[in-house]
Amino acid sequence: MMKLTILGCHSATPRENKHTTSQLLEIKGNLFLIDCGEGTQIQLRKAKIKFARIQHIFISHLHGDHFYGLIGLISTFRLLGRIAPLHIYGPKGIQEIIQLQLKLAKSWTDYPLYFHELISTHSECIFNEDDIQVETIPLDHRVYTNGFLFTYKNSHRKINTEACSKYDIKPYHFNQLQQGKSITLENGEFIENKKLTFPPESAKRYAYCSDTAYSESIINKIKGADLLYHEATFLHQHEGLAKNTKHSTAQQAAEIAKNAEVKQLVLGHFSSRYPSKEEFIQEAAPIFKAVELAEDFKTFSI
Amino acid sequence: MMKLTILGCHSATPRENKHTTSQLLEIKGNLFLIDCGEGTQIQLRKAKIKFARIQHIFISHLHGDHFYGLIGLISTFRLLGRIAPLHIYGPKGIQEIIQLQLKLAKSWTDYPLYFHELISTHSECIFNEDDIQVETIPLDHRVYTNGFLFTYKNSHRKINTEACSKYDIKPYHFNQLQQGKSITLENGEFIENKKLTFPPESAKRYAYCSDTAYSESIINKIKGADLLYHEATFLHQHEGLAKNTKHSTAQQAAEIAKNAEVKQLVLGHFSSRYPSKEEFIQEAAPIFKAVELAEDFKTFSI
Repeated sequence: MMKLTILGCHSATPRENKHTTSQLLEIKGNLFLIDCGEGTQIQLRKAKIKFARIQHIFISHLHGDHFYGLIGLISTFRLLGRIAPLHIYGPKGIQEIIQLQLKLAKSWTDYPLYFHELISTHSECIFNEDDIQVETIPLDHRVYTNGFLFTYKNSHRKINTEACSKYDIKPYHFNQLQQGKSITLENGEFIENKKLTFPPESAKRYAYCSDTAYSESIINKIKGADLLYHEATFLHQHEGLAKNTKHSTAQQAAEIAKNAEVKQLVLGHFSSRYPSKEEFIQEAAPIFKAVELAEDFKTFSI
Repeated sequence: MMKLTILGCHSATPRENKHTTSQLLEIKGNLFLIDCGEGTQIQLRKAKIKFARIQHIFISHLHGDHFYGLIGLISTFRLLGRIAPLHIYGPKGIQEIIQLQLKLAKSWTDYPLYFHELISTHSECIFNEDDIQVETIPLDHRVYTNGFLFTYKNSHRKINTEACSKYDIKPYHFNQLQQGKSITLENGEFIENKKLTFPPESAKRYAYCSDTAYSESIINKIKGADLLYHEATFLHQHEGLAKNTKHSTAQQAAEIAKNAEVKQLVLGHFSSRYPSKEEFIQEAAPIFKAVELAEDFKTFSI
């Protein structure tokens, strides 16, 4: 299972109780931070997240509302005595920005800090560990931008408890069964794995797409995802503005969700010009029914 | 008159309701921002400050808790359609940090942005306009750091309304009188300026000293200031830690205030290790009585 927590979902500038983009994705005990607008570290404190558990940060692009909080978080990690390594994935240039500030502050981190700079305009796998895979989703924005596709492929077979109860199964057998191995009971009886287990749960996939113009080229990559976060900075009435600034409307986000046949759509990155966010739902729902609005601290289970 | 608003007064890292260093000083309608920790732009919004009125920002040093909010503020100014020029005063390197981020975001400001980089280890005058002067106060910290001494020298003489009531003074005369000129009444009578005015109010001086180790070398510069903000990161019990990290204790801040014969002392830049701030007052007051604690959004009239 994955759990997504929205830390900020507003565009451009942070305001009181309206934070710029950041999300936390939990997969099997691992915490992945996606984007890091100014003030993200305070949002993490409010959400009662243990900072040391975050070991991988993914930055979509170098506009301030998606990464101005990163240097502060890196510094705070140091002040809190962090030992655990930290990996940063983001556009080329991110390392220079961070290291210049650390150098001028004479405040190098005591913990290992690794940068994984991205330059490819094709999707690539940038993380693959422990049944979790992260691939980039090249987006169409004013600067080089990637979305991220998180896939959790649980390779463990599920124990068929009813079938197991008919045999003298010992605790050490369960591990073997989960790994797909057939077992030999202590009385010498051999039992095939399939008799005692079900196939692993199907893979879970979360697609994060912000910021981007309407771009059909992403559909193939995110096809059938369990959850899609797609930016909807504007409403249809401002479609021209969306085009000029390479953002999307709620209608366009819904079209992508529909064509990609995802299971659920979450809209975010709202422009502050709209006093009510309900219109985003009204615009998207006729095209794609399973749509929700992002809200700071709202969580989604996948 | 000057009005000081504390926007943040806590050290190291921002927390919920505890913001890192930033202050706003208003002198004669001019707004000067002093330091700019992460989240300062949200604090400014909470304080209902019109952003365009800030035309000069003074950065003491390049530790994150004093300037990580600057790039966000500069970007927000642009997004709000700012036209007014902005002047940044701070240690050498600040221009490179800001410009690198603007370049990688392809987001140059549309308004004129001027950097005034500081390298001198001696006090120098860095601003002198409209009866307002700002001088640096070289401080002793782990990186190159300046405090700032703001002087408002009102050159306008005060009108002696009682004396004026005895003559047929016309409105245009008042301007001449404030400027120190003698006047000729419409009946041809000449009257010396001194008969109709009082001397200008004495100059007002605000000294901002953060971050710094205990340093007697600043005493001469800040002598007799109306208000001194002096960092007090630690209590006396952690004097060794203060020395190692080049910070001050409440006791040391009080010693400086006493020896500099300032009129009032405000303590700030508190370490988060102390649950109660009252001990800072208890420690400082026996040495220097007119002492107060900084608090976010607290104001001081000078």
